[in-house]
Amino acid sequence: MTEPLRVVSLGGLGEVGKNMLLIEYGDDAIAIDCGLMFPESDMLGIDLVIPDTTYLLDNPELLKAIFLTHGHEDHIGALPYILPQVPAPLYATRLTRGLIEVKLKEAKLLDKTDIHTISTDSVIEIGPFTVEPFHVCHSIPDAVGYAIYTPSGLIIHTGEYKFDTAPTDGRLSDIERLRTYGDEGVLLLLSDSTNAERPGHTPSEQIVSETFEQIFNQVKGRIIVATFASNISRVQQVINTAMRYNRKLAVVGRSMVDNVKMALQLGYLTAPEDMLVHVDDLEDYPDSQIAIVCTGTQGEPTSALVRMANREHRQVSLKEGDTVILSATAIPGNEELVHRTINNLFRLGANVIYQSLRPVHVSGHAAQEEQKMMLELTRPQYFIPIQGEYRMMVLHGRLGEEVGITPQNIFVIENGQVIEFDEDGAYLAERASSGHILVDGLGIGDVGSVVLRDRHQLSRDGFVVLVIALDEQTGEVVDGPDIISRGFVYVRDSEDLLEEAKEYVIDLLESGRVHRDTVATVTRDALSQFLYKRTRRRPMIFPMVLEV
Amino acid sequence: MTEPLRVVSLGGLGEVGKNMLLIEYGDDAIAIDCGLMFPESDMLGIDLVIPDTTYLLDNPELLKAIFLTHGHEDHIGALPYILPQVPAPLYATRLTRGLIEVKLKEAKLLDKTDIHTISTDSVIEIGPFTVEPFHVCHSIPDAVGYAIYTPSGLIIHTGEYKFDTAPTDGRLSDIERLRTYGDEGVLLLLSDSTNAERPGHTPSEQIVSETFEQIFNQVKGRIIVATFASNISRVQQVINTAMRYNRKLAVVGRSMVDNVKMALQLGYLTAPEDMLVHVDDLEDYPDSQIAIVCTGTQGEPTSALVRMANREHRQVSLKEGDTVILSATAIPGNEELVHRTINNLFRLGANVIYQSLRPVHVSGHAAQEEQKMMLELTRPQYFIPIQGEYRMMVLHGRLGEEVGITPQNIFVIENGQVIEFDEDGAYLAERASSGHILVDGLGIGDVGSVVLRDRHQLSRDGFVVLVIALDEQTGEVVDGPDIISRGFVYVRDSEDLLEEAKEYVIDLLESGRVHRDTVATVTRDALSQFLYKRTRRRPMIFPMVLEV
Repeated sequence: MTEPLRVVSLGGLGEVGKNMLLIEYGDDAIAIDCGLMFPESDMLGIDLVIPDTTYLLDNPELLKAIFLTHGHEDHIGALPYILPQVPAPLYATRLTRGLIEVKLKEAKLLDKTDIHTISTDSVIEIGPFTVEPFHVCHSIPDAVGYAIYTPSGLIIHTGEYKFDTAPTDGRLSDIERLRTYGDEGVLLLLSDSTNAERPGHTPSEQIVSETFEQIFNQVKGRIIVATFASNISRVQQVINTAMRYNRKLAVVGRSMVDNVKMALQLGYLTAPEDMLVHVDDLEDYPDSQIAIVCTGTQGEPTSALVRMANREHRQVSLKEGDTVILSATAIPGNEELVHRTINNLFRLGANVIYQSLRPVHVSGHAAQEEQKMMLELTRPQYFIPIQGEYRMMVLHGRLGEEVGITPQNIFVIENGQVIEFDEDGAYLAERASSGHILVDGLGIGDVGSVVLRDRHQLSRDGFVVLVIALDEQTGEVVDGPDIISRGFVYVRDSEDLLEEAKEYVIDLLESGRVHRDTVATVTRDALSQFLYKRTRRRPMIFPMVLEV
Repeated sequence: MTEPLRVVSLGGLGEVGKNMLLIEYGDDAIAIDCGLMFPESDMLGIDLVIPDTTYLLDNPELLKAIFLTHGHEDHIGALPYILPQVPAPLYATRLTRGLIEVKLKEAKLLDKTDIHTISTDSVIEIGPFTVEPFHVCHSIPDAVGYAIYTPSGLIIHTGEYKFDTAPTDGRLSDIERLRTYGDEGVLLLLSDSTNAERPGHTPSEQIVSETFEQIFNQVKGRIIVATFASNISRVQQVINTAMRYNRKLAVVGRSMVDNVKMALQLGYLTAPEDMLVHVDDLEDYPDSQIAIVCTGTQGEPTSALVRMANREHRQVSLKEGDTVILSATAIPGNEELVHRTINNLFRLGANVIYQSLRPVHVSGHAAQEEQKMMLELTRPQYFIPIQGEYRMMVLHGRLGEEVGITPQNIFVIENGQVIEFDEDGAYLAERASSGHILVDGLGIGDVGSVVLRDRHQLSRDGFVVLVIALDEQTGEVVDGPDIISRGFVYVRDSEDLLEEAKEYVIDLLESGRVHRDTVATVTRDALSQFLYKRTRRRPMIFPMVLEV
């Protein structure tokens, strides 16, 4: 064995292996996932963030395939951006494929992309790798982890998983397969760290079903359940409960409608034929026979639930007697929007049931005891915690120590950090170029720290442009100064201030103390000081001197 | 009895009575608290938010006194802004007064303000009101609630409270006084709703002391405890534990240093003389004898802890073996910054202990069972939940129903909603002008929705100013177009785009299709479309046409 096996995490905002992870041996590599990240709150105006593929562009023949673990955006969402740069065949389960195809079709890439449907019976051979998908429970059906046989040994990539004992679709995470891999001998475990801060077990989906049951049993008015559009299993739970209580169900919210349609077609959702009705037809039924499932759990301003909360939804007007269930928790950073939405729903007189009050949601990720179980089933020689913020990976690493993995064989790494495995062991290799690329409109990677810094300053204090025309010969002011300003002061109420600013600049220029070549910089500095003194604000200031 | 008693909540971002609440009878009113609000995340560039006092300005002789419940910013922080508009004598306990004086001194208002020190023995008569402060436990010492005797009956305002059974300073909330008031007969209870989502009791400060004890007992390296600068009791807990383990303590962070100094002077903090050392002198001691208490629990970019986490602190360099305790939880909206700080601390090799892992913090507010106890002790005829977001006030209102208050006598209200009490009962009166005023630099109230909308747009896509000089006579372009742009594209890499934009504008103007009077608007619209098509971004566009 002369070649080292290499593990390379690309992309991610601190979360290793969340969005794209490479397994590399000799001239071949396969990627696990190709997802996008949601911008952090200081990435102003950024639409989304994708992995940096410089490493793959520098090694153009390297990538032989991309394996997808499940259909969430942070695992498949970067495909439309990455595939044109780094084309590769895709491997995905049926539902995941369905979700990918919607994306690739929109991006006009579907015809150009080679997609293979895989199942937990598949064995895929690619170069030196043999890949076996195994079933895991997650908050979307048809999720898998991967067993990857390499010349250096077996790698287990858990995907995102939990060991739910009573999942909605009845399919348990494949504990037996994991144990068998452990028996064969696992070189490296790459395991989901998301819930490494949570002790115990993640409760089963069963508890959500039971809570739904209780609520549907008590409530006489309409019931509106909001959840993630991708949480097909949760939608099935709503369908099941609504069915038992003879309620018709309307699906509201574009992404929810699309996903439900697709999942029904593929058989991942089942509902009696006459049960699903169009939202416009709800008025034919009494409130006690109405249920709605919709988007908006994150307080997204254009989502169905938020429109309802703001009395802006065309089809659904909330009223006293309605019960709204938020079957999800706020993703960090969204708390303020979620709380605002809940407050507004209460203001409309609706009864709102959310996670702090009743167990209407459970996480899709393994908690500490399950993470330990994964470690104990697979008994890996090496362990790299993935898919979590740094602190979670540290805590997950400690669980590894607790179950007996040699501390030196546990690698808590950052994105771009390459780990190499050879006959002598595992070690940190030279870092690969990695990071994240900001997507803003059509621009991929053109917005960087300079533009973001400017946006940040503009967002706090706005800008002032001062335009002044000087006579080319004499240097005298022939027109202006004119001022354009936004985001600094309310212009209509600040005419005096802006007039004074103009006069201040004219006085300065007429004082004869300003050299022609320095008009712009001197004016900017003087105006900046003047305005700061008067307002304690620091707008961006741009003097524009025309010579005519 | 001819005059109605009126309760009016001013200010607040949805939280009734959090920042300023008026009790009004005839020509007299007293206010409870005068605090500021922290801007919501979409209030771009805003420094802080204060209550709208229009109602008091419209009734200039009305306000006779301001009673402060405790020394937190959201209860005293608006005084420097409100007092110049609406001067009134202040009533505060000793520590609260100390904190107020620091503020008023900075604002050069101390000499002009009449401040009365009160204690739980005080009985203050003001016009028709007799006011008795009573002790409550909160996350700052010397907190009180108020019993307010009015001609219409007794009002109990709880302040912010919890029923801690083992507070650090040993002073329990005054249950007996509350019971006595209940026996006398309470017309109206105004009670803290903050933790109405939390079942059970808020754990005692005792549990934090015990956790500190365990950590100090285990750890050999330096221990750094971050908490709120105002959480004097928590600082005392750190002092007590450090003392037992023979550690010197350094106080780091400007606001923490100021508060500790003041609290030591006033006797609210006690520490052996030689125990507190300057941070620069820590190097004289081995790691096992060092403790630090500092600011930064909210991930504030300039705070001591964040500087340490980013290796930017002048005096404290963190290293492996250090233990950092975050003795606070993230205020909603700060989660991302807090998580980032924890991740960075772990990256430096420190062991970080925070609330998800061990009980190193408890809330300063009553949970549901304590809220019920407050209701049961005071047995009020009417109940207005205050100090919480709308959903919390709704939930608190439900607790009121649970303990037997007539549902019609429970008012879940919004700010500005006046409640009147007369011999016939209580009812919603005409709303008072109320709301919030944004403070940005020296500007109080000048930044409103227009400026915020502009800042929001600028933060997403920046701006483009296009300057063009036309010949006054012929209308021909004599100079320009020049473009200034920030926050839209990275100008250095986008010269081609901006050149094309200029040419596009020149072609348009030279086409002869644009009337002189409409040059600005036509140019703006055309340029907007051109840039959107090329970038899918919508910068603010300002054409500036000079005629020379």
